[in-house]
Amino acid sequence: MGDVFDFIGKRIPSIDSMSKVTGSAKYIADLSLPGMLYGKFLRSPHAHARVVKIDTSRAEMLPGVKLVLTPDDIIGKTNPVGAARPRNQYALHREVRYVGDEVAAVAAVDEATAEEALELIQVTYEELPVVLDPEAAMVPGAPQLQEEARNNVRDLKRVRIGDIEKGLKEADYIVKGRFQTSKQVHAALDTHACLSSYDPATGKLTHWTRTQYVFYTRLSIAGALNMPASKVRVIAPPAIGGAFGNKSGSYAHDIAAAFMSRKLGQPVKMALSREEEFQATKSRHPFLIDAEIGLNKDGTIVAWREKAILDVGAYGDLNSWVALLGQAMAAGPYKIPNIWVDSYCVYTDKPVSGAMRGFGNPQITFARESLLDMAADQVGIDPVEIRLKNIIEPEDVPYTTSTGLIIRSCGIEECIKKAAQAVGWAEKRKPNTGVGMAGMMQQSGFKTLDADAEYATVNIELAADGSLLVRTGNSDVGQGLYTVLAQMAAEDLGIPLEEVTIIGADSEVTPPDLGCVSSRSPMTTGGALRIAAAEVKRKLFRIASNMLEVDPQDLVARQGKIHVKDMSRSVPIAEVAGAAYFTSVDGDAGPITAQGTWVSSTQPQNEDGYGNYAPCYAFAADAIEVEVEPATGEVKITKCVVAHDVGRTLNLDIVEGQLHGGAGMGIGYGLLEEGLVHASKTGQLLNPSIMSYKVPTALDLPDMQLILVETIDPVSPLGSKGVGDMGVACLAAAIANAIYDAVGVRITELPITPTKVLRALEAKREQSGT
Amino acid sequence: MGDVFDFIGKRIPSIDSMSKVTGSAKYIADLSLPGMLYGKFLRSPHAHARVVKIDTSRAEMLPGVKLVLTPDDIIGKTNPVGAARPRNQYALHREVRYVGDEVAAVAAVDEATAEEALELIQVTYEELPVVLDPEAAMVPGAPQLQEEARNNVRDLKRVRIGDIEKGLKEADYIVKGRFQTSKQVHAALDTHACLSSYDPATGKLTHWTRTQYVFYTRLSIAGALNMPASKVRVIAPPAIGGAFGNKSGSYAHDIAAAFMSRKLGQPVKMALSREEEFQATKSRHPFLIDAEIGLNKDGTIVAWREKAILDVGAYGDLNSWVALLGQAMAAGPYKIPNIWVDSYCVYTDKPVSGAMRGFGNPQITFARESLLDMAADQVGIDPVEIRLKNIIEPEDVPYTTSTGLIIRSCGIEECIKKAAQAVGWAEKRKPNTGVGMAGMMQQSGFKTLDADAEYATVNIELAADGSLLVRTGNSDVGQGLYTVLAQMAAEDLGIPLEEVTIIGADSEVTPPDLGCVSSRSPMTTGGALRIAAAEVKRKLFRIASNMLEVDPQDLVARQGKIHVKDMSRSVPIAEVAGAAYFTSVDGDAGPITAQGTWVSSTQPQNEDGYGNYAPCYAFAADAIEVEVEPATGEVKITKCVVAHDVGRTLNLDIVEGQLHGGAGMGIGYGLLEEGLVHASKTGQLLNPSIMSYKVPTALDLPDMQLILVETIDPVSPLGSKGVGDMGVACLAAAIANAIYDAVGVRITELPITPTKVLRALEAKREQSGT
Repeated sequence: MGDVFDFIGKRIPSIDSMSKVTGSAKYIADLSLPGMLYGKFLRSPHAHARVVKIDTSRAEMLPGVKLVLTPDDIIGKTNPVGAARPRNQYALHREVRYVGDEVAAVAAVDEATAEEALELIQVTYEELPVVLDPEAAMVPGAPQLQEEARNNVRDLKRVRIGDIEKGLKEADYIVKGRFQTSKQVHAALDTHACLSSYDPATGKLTHWTRTQYVFYTRLSIAGALNMPASKVRVIAPPAIGGAFGNKSGSYAHDIAAAFMSRKLGQPVKMALSREEEFQATKSRHPFLIDAEIGLNKDGTIVAWREKAILDVGAYGDLNSWVALLGQAMAAGPYKIPNIWVDSYCVYTDKPVSGAMRGFGNPQITFARESLLDMAADQVGIDPVEIRLKNIIEPEDVPYTTSTGLIIRSCGIEECIKKAAQAVGWAEKRKPNTGVGMAGMMQQSGFKTLDADAEYATVNIELAADGSLLVRTGNSDVGQGLYTVLAQMAAEDLGIPLEEVTIIGADSEVTPPDLGCVSSRSPMTTGGALRIAAAEVKRKLFRIASNMLEVDPQDLVARQGKIHVKDMSRSVPIAEVAGAAYFTSVDGDAGPITAQGTWVSSTQPQNEDGYGNYAPCYAFAADAIEVEVEPATGEVKITKCVVAHDVGRTLNLDIVEGQLHGGAGMGIGYGLLEEGLVHASKTGQLLNPSIMSYKVPTALDLPDMQLILVETIDPVSPLGSKGVGDMGVACLAAAIANAIYDAVGVRITELPITPTKVLRALEAKREQSGT
Repeated sequence: MGDVFDFIGKRIPSIDSMSKVTGSAKYIADLSLPGMLYGKFLRSPHAHARVVKIDTSRAEMLPGVKLVLTPDDIIGKTNPVGAARPRNQYALHREVRYVGDEVAAVAAVDEATAEEALELIQVTYEELPVVLDPEAAMVPGAPQLQEEARNNVRDLKRVRIGDIEKGLKEADYIVKGRFQTSKQVHAALDTHACLSSYDPATGKLTHWTRTQYVFYTRLSIAGALNMPASKVRVIAPPAIGGAFGNKSGSYAHDIAAAFMSRKLGQPVKMALSREEEFQATKSRHPFLIDAEIGLNKDGTIVAWREKAILDVGAYGDLNSWVALLGQAMAAGPYKIPNIWVDSYCVYTDKPVSGAMRGFGNPQITFARESLLDMAADQVGIDPVEIRLKNIIEPEDVPYTTSTGLIIRSCGIEECIKKAAQAVGWAEKRKPNTGVGMAGMMQQSGFKTLDADAEYATVNIELAADGSLLVRTGNSDVGQGLYTVLAQMAAEDLGIPLEEVTIIGADSEVTPPDLGCVSSRSPMTTGGALRIAAAEVKRKLFRIASNMLEVDPQDLVARQGKIHVKDMSRSVPIAEVAGAAYFTSVDGDAGPITAQGTWVSSTQPQNEDGYGNYAPCYAFAADAIEVEVEPATGEVKITKCVVAHDVGRTLNLDIVEGQLHGGAGMGIGYGLLEEGLVHASKTGQLLNPSIMSYKVPTALDLPDMQLILVETIDPVSPLGSKGVGDMGVACLAAAIANAIYDAVGVRITELPITPTKVLRALEAKREQSGT
């Protein structure tokens, strides 16, 4: 193909933009079916309690109510869900473990009736002791929240690389810190909803739900309801308004709606309110990190030791993988020979933590990059210099890190240098103004759950008129994946973009795919597409070579035609496709279809945390300039430089959109988003609304300068890297570092609110006696 | 696999029977979409006229009317449809060519408004001369109905095998006859309808229609509307109430609904009334056959000469292929060295003739089997004996006929002998009672349109819990195809039937398939399924062989498990499938999917009519006993024996159902169905209703004795042969022969009504002077 492209790398508008702008795009909220009922949950007002009695009689008598479910209908009659064993979350619970936990469910002819019915259900609770703080939960004698978890520790993951004791002993400097990150929520515009329709005559369940991963959701629902997966059709709606990790797997509403539809033989829709979205879906894992870093005199990092406590919340989900990734990314883009990590996953009486953009990396990056600046301060060298001293340099590549990650392309040096230059690192600044930087590495792609590989399958059909259908099981959650896939298909087969149709994310229609997670899609699904496209091309060229009487290898496909390479003659693809459809060629015949599977064999971590996590890795360095108002503690970002190694840019608009959005979320993480705040004793949620939980708006965000560094990765099919996850991680630390540079205080707890800055300034003034 | 089956050959209820019995099955009539409009056609009251003027102003002013289309909107702005070139049927016409031809169309908010609007459209016609009789149409100077067709002959197909003049000259006997068959209609219970929905934002058209062949319909609609096929999604509804050939390709209502939906941006539904179904869909081609047969003294057939005139109706469709198949089947199951056929396809001012169960074979079989009895009479040997003398015998196989058909399995001898025995051929009978027999051969499968191959593609996914999804582009039109496919998948992979889901006939979902035509599906689509299943099995066994530590070839899949062949140990398929999904195996990974394409290279007929039409051939002999009431001419079937070589029986219930249904249609063809009757001058339709067009009911049909002869064909994947088409062909001739045996009159024009018998008896009495 060479590096001259007709479609790749261009600014091509999202193929669904017209339907979103005109409003014809269908979200779950837009779907309805004849005879559809509305389901609602009754939720626990207690953070921890036993349900002693439920009286549903009044609710059942309300006209329009079709079904009232209690935990007795569910527990023991369905299987629990969750990404990993032991699974312990049901659609309804007899013992509730957070405020908002599901206690009963209702299906009624309309939403108002369902809500009225909820008020008629009388539940008697026996309150139980509440544990909200994971450190407290680990203390022997703390209330045990899940039967299997001694001291509430669901899982413990470890890294044991090198000799940590020796490494720290021999270090010239040891710098320690304790860092606390927040329970950031995804706050996607499109709240969770599903529509479930069971046909008693065929035994088939059709289930529309906002999901990043229809195949896993299918398995999860089928498993919960004891149905064959082949009888469960999971469809991601054509339009999903953001996901950020919060739409993987199945939720209580998925299971309850499916269960009620099967029981009633009528479609049931369940849609969460914004409050329920905050309460009862997932969030980023809060990490409490105690870390120490050992360095030589010249600033070379020799050791990293860390204990992380992950706040899992009430039920088990993806915590072990968040722990694993957090560990795997602990060293970031730096070469560190001795690494020791303990990651404790701990239950608390809070909503479940799950996957969220960055997946463990923003937490660990905040700690590492803060600590690195603290170390630079001690060693007495510049923060940029200490980073450049320790990074994986271009000449190191290919490089295997001490933890086994295989780096085949790395642009971190260029990112750091360009970000420093762009932010004016060396400039003299006004008082209370400072600059900060943070660097990071982020995996693109992911090993499969429980497994050691990363795969996707794409199915292509070339219609008889030369137009193209591409089927992918992956979801476009608003980020533009299908646009990128259409570009790739158009590029590889020389078919006009407007003749490529992407068919996506319907478990009955599309081939299996690991889904839209972990910045994998253009690489893995795109890779599968390119394999299938190559097979289509091979078949096309075989027929065209007969028509044009040249060797297939002398052909090239562009702009709807297959040309002889010297462009002297050509035949329309429509004609070749038609011939394949209608004419036998060499005894072969039939429409041109192909299925491609892209597999990258990664290597699972061993017990010491050694292994290669992902097919490839992206790098970034963000540089921030802030002004701190000492009187109020207010922090204003005056410059924001985002320099990212994105591999090859596939669609410039989309890459920029991802980086802008990621940086916005990173700034929210750093400065604004208080996370889900719980009253310290009762666990009552204090801010489950967009009014009280502050997602940054455009007005809260600075202008951003984007710098794209393109290191073409040899593993990724077009050399692209993931850009979805990586945008978030650096910002919080870069801001904290800039604040330190500006006013000399170090904030280690997210978000960095004016109050925290003010108190730190006060403490500093007290300390210095001024 | 051996010949012991868990599922194949059993009486397994259709997998859709529950949904049909409970009413949950969705026909097109059951579908509706928000904002859906209803479309209706204004139809021509004249058999041939020019539209001089259309005034739509009053119709357009009617509240609720959204659009009124006239031929000016369509002609030159869309492309005509039809199975073959030259295509000449549009959604609307400026020159109408039969009573019922489409002149204008309306879309309105409901059906009543649409119908009211039709009455407000004022059309001024200039009547043109009408030609209804194809022989008359061929006379030079007859009105020319289509520009390209000189003497109204659209096509002429020929067979020139051997030396016909020499053959006839050297024959000891030459017997001649003229035979006229009727314009039988399909009369499926489910009348034609479609629902078309265009999304202006994505440029995609979704089109539900009753079709046997979604991929051809997709191409046809895309071609008519100048859209890429990848933007047209054609879906056959989950339930289709019979097809019989009348649901291949696209109709005027498909094009008009799609066109109006695109113009309006709203869904448009069009459903034909029963009267419209009779008027404006297709029918069996009436054949006028002049045939002569040459025989030696001993009854050996040495020559067959035939001129057939096919009544094409107003527009070109599948006539050339009907002619080709009629020709290819002219010799039936007999060895005839010299064959000469001319098949003229001739336009008339009547509804279009198209594909119908048997596809040219019932017509030619009626002529040949009647003529053969007439010849037996002349030669002076028994009708059974003359057939046995000429058939392809088991020891001939594999046998290539004089016209190039390759017979790899043939059970005609057994069919004839068993049918004769069962009907009590040699018994002495009461006066006015007689027996008759007819034999036939019918292709299973078909070469592709314009091409020389027969193919299907099936896509299989094994879900992580070991349940199975099978995707086929073929339609189940009520005959049970999906049940048979589910049996085959269950059999091949040892998966419980209830865990197999068949997903069918949606051009966006399923892989391309030639569709449900020409008795091909269990062979071709089933063949593709078995190829895909073998690949799934290979992958399964590879993983299971690691788990069980045995060689893959020592494994067998049955009852949800993979066993070591000695049945000593096993592992559940669910476990193996899960491992494939979640665990890397030998560096490979990912869900088990496979796509299989079944291709049978057939050979197109050359100009002399030599070639191999189909992958395999089925045979049948039906024997009939009748009582004729001389006073009324009424014919009562007192015995009906249907002996068919079906290859391997795949599902006994379904095979029997096909043979019962086919025989019922054959008896209707022979005795009852007057075809579409046209007033001799105006072309007005006289019987476009179920009241006046008599389809036999259960009360009209005799008890039938079915005899299944199973000659396992080596080409067909499980050895099965088509049973859909073959049932019809023999009955009309067998009845005619039995009537001759009973009362000595030969009826050569279908249907054999009491009037015709009575007149023949009267003529005979006159002739013999009694």
